[in-house]
Amino acid sequence: MIIGIDIGGTNVRALIVEPEGALVVDRRRASSSGNGPALVATIVGLVDQLVTANHDFDRLNGIGLGVAGLAGRSGTLRWSPNLPEVVEFPLGPELEEKTGLSVTMTNDASAAAWAEHQLGAGRDVDDFAMVTLGTGIGAGFVMGGRLLWGAEGYAGEVGHMLVARDGPFHHTGQQGPWEHFASGTALGRLGREAAAAGHFSVGLAMAESVDDIDGHHVGRAIAAGDPEAEGILEEFCREVALGLSNLVVVLDPSRVVLGGGLSGIGEPLRAGVERWLGEVLPGSVHRPAVEVRLAELGDDAGAIGAALLAAEATAHD
Amino acid sequence: MIIGIDIGGTNVRALIVEPEGALVVDRRRASSSGNGPALVATIVGLVDQLVTANHDFDRLNGIGLGVAGLAGRSGTLRWSPNLPEVVEFPLGPELEEKTGLSVTMTNDASAAAWAEHQLGAGRDVDDFAMVTLGTGIGAGFVMGGRLLWGAEGYAGEVGHMLVARDGPFHHTGQQGPWEHFASGTALGRLGREAAAAGHFSVGLAMAESVDDIDGHHVGRAIAAGDPEAEGILEEFCREVALGLSNLVVVLDPSRVVLGGGLSGIGEPLRAGVERWLGEVLPGSVHRPAVEVRLAELGDDAGAIGAALLAAEATAHD
Repeated sequence: MIIGIDIGGTNVRALIVEPEGALVVDRRRASSSGNGPALVATIVGLVDQLVTANHDFDRLNGIGLGVAGLAGRSGTLRWSPNLPEVVEFPLGPELEEKTGLSVTMTNDASAAAWAEHQLGAGRDVDDFAMVTLGTGIGAGFVMGGRLLWGAEGYAGEVGHMLVARDGPFHHTGQQGPWEHFASGTALGRLGREAAAAGHFSVGLAMAESVDDIDGHHVGRAIAAGDPEAEGILEEFCREVALGLSNLVVVLDPSRVVLGGGLSGIGEPLRAGVERWLGEVLPGSVHRPAVEVRLAELGDDAGAIGAALLAAEATAHD
Repeated sequence: MIIGIDIGGTNVRALIVEPEGALVVDRRRASSSGNGPALVATIVGLVDQLVTANHDFDRLNGIGLGVAGLAGRSGTLRWSPNLPEVVEFPLGPELEEKTGLSVTMTNDASAAAWAEHQLGAGRDVDDFAMVTLGTGIGAGFVMGGRLLWGAEGYAGEVGHMLVARDGPFHHTGQQGPWEHFASGTALGRLGREAAAAGHFSVGLAMAESVDDIDGHHVGRAIAAGDPEAEGILEEFCREVALGLSNLVVVLDPSRVVLGGGLSGIGEPLRAGVERWLGEVLPGSVHRPAVEVRLAELGDDAGAIGAALLAAEATAHD
């Protein structure tokens, strides 16, 4: 058995997985607040709960961690925007010492990509990009059937890709990153801009003031079939596609899988992004169309992928 | 023995290689003008010359082709900007029929990256990006010690990466691609702009008119130690670094190798790009510095890499 853990800014999600069929046997959750040692204590607590509740299973072979941000293969969490108190922290080694288990750490979006490759929307392709659209944008890549880690394990920090060298400054201080235009935060901004111009009355009614409109209001209005929200989504899908076109010219995936919170918008998002990608991709007439699909594993993807990667690492030991 | 061939817009360069030590035994060259059948005839002629002149060697095991543009793994050349008459042409299968040898085709920059990985500036790293700065910009990636092909073999078309979504239109029709800002063509434009503003008197003297200044004049003025040309290079290095920072956040290479014609500028280019990359790379304080090196194999890199990839493909048959 393997434990897979997804560490986000709000919650730590832990699963126990039977790696043969990647069957999720049990799951637990806790708050992820605090510094490095507090995070270690939280994770150790979740591991204890899972082990105690499942003591009749085979022995535990390892722990896989998926963490948003620069999560190094060495087990050191260099920097996670969602966990500002945990910088340059040797999370992997600390956990190994406390649990006696081997720990494999990776980026949460890379872990999710691996899970989708093994079990979900990337099951039948060797070269695909998983892009998570949430508060920010993350990505994981499977190329030639293998997870693309990069030298340190930092591959996929695509939210920081420059798409507007003379554009607006993002809250990170970077000028013109993709995340500024195509994240959930950006969708909220498009909604506020539309409402301020008198073109999003449904959203304004839901949020009660222009300033309170966020991406969720746009998503709910799309679900309700509001044509103004669909216009906002159209603009948003183009922004998503512009960044995806960079990933396609660099990596040449045959498929893009959209995950993260915004993938809950569903088919209107998928179809809009796929159509715009065909429009904006340079040389698209000379190459096969890139298929866009929605992720299939939902919120469990990161933890399951982390567990599967840990199972592989353990098998190679 | 393996034959490696690099097909550019002007010349076809053919080498015969002893793959054990990747020793180049002999080389030939011909013009690459004309349509698909003419190109096949040219290549067959070069192969015949090499085989005739080297008949005392072991039998020939295959042919590797490196071609600028969308050169598919299937052997079909979809589209090459340098070979406008050769579109959707089954170059690989046609050559196999004519020569009776197996043909492996890839992008020229990917081939060059593989050669630099085996024999040159990427010898000692598993994760690196080779970027060729010439009339346009190309790239090849080695990740986890393997060449990154992509689904069709089209990975590395980085010149088309969007870096200015509201920026100027490139001659390809795309708005704001990296190539517009950081190719040899762009260096010439920076030189003309500087000269028009009265800040590149050495270049103006060399070219005799502002409109005749190109990237070569800037390169020659840098070599001569002209401070105005060094200022132009500084601006240019920042443009190169902005696009490289996208490759680094996406792929996480530990090293970038600069090849192509502009790498002839040498150390001033390398040092400037490395310094600017440290400046513009998001989160650079939290990750190891990315090393920038100059390519080591020169104009032979593409043909040698194509030969080495063909040798591997043949070994797997």
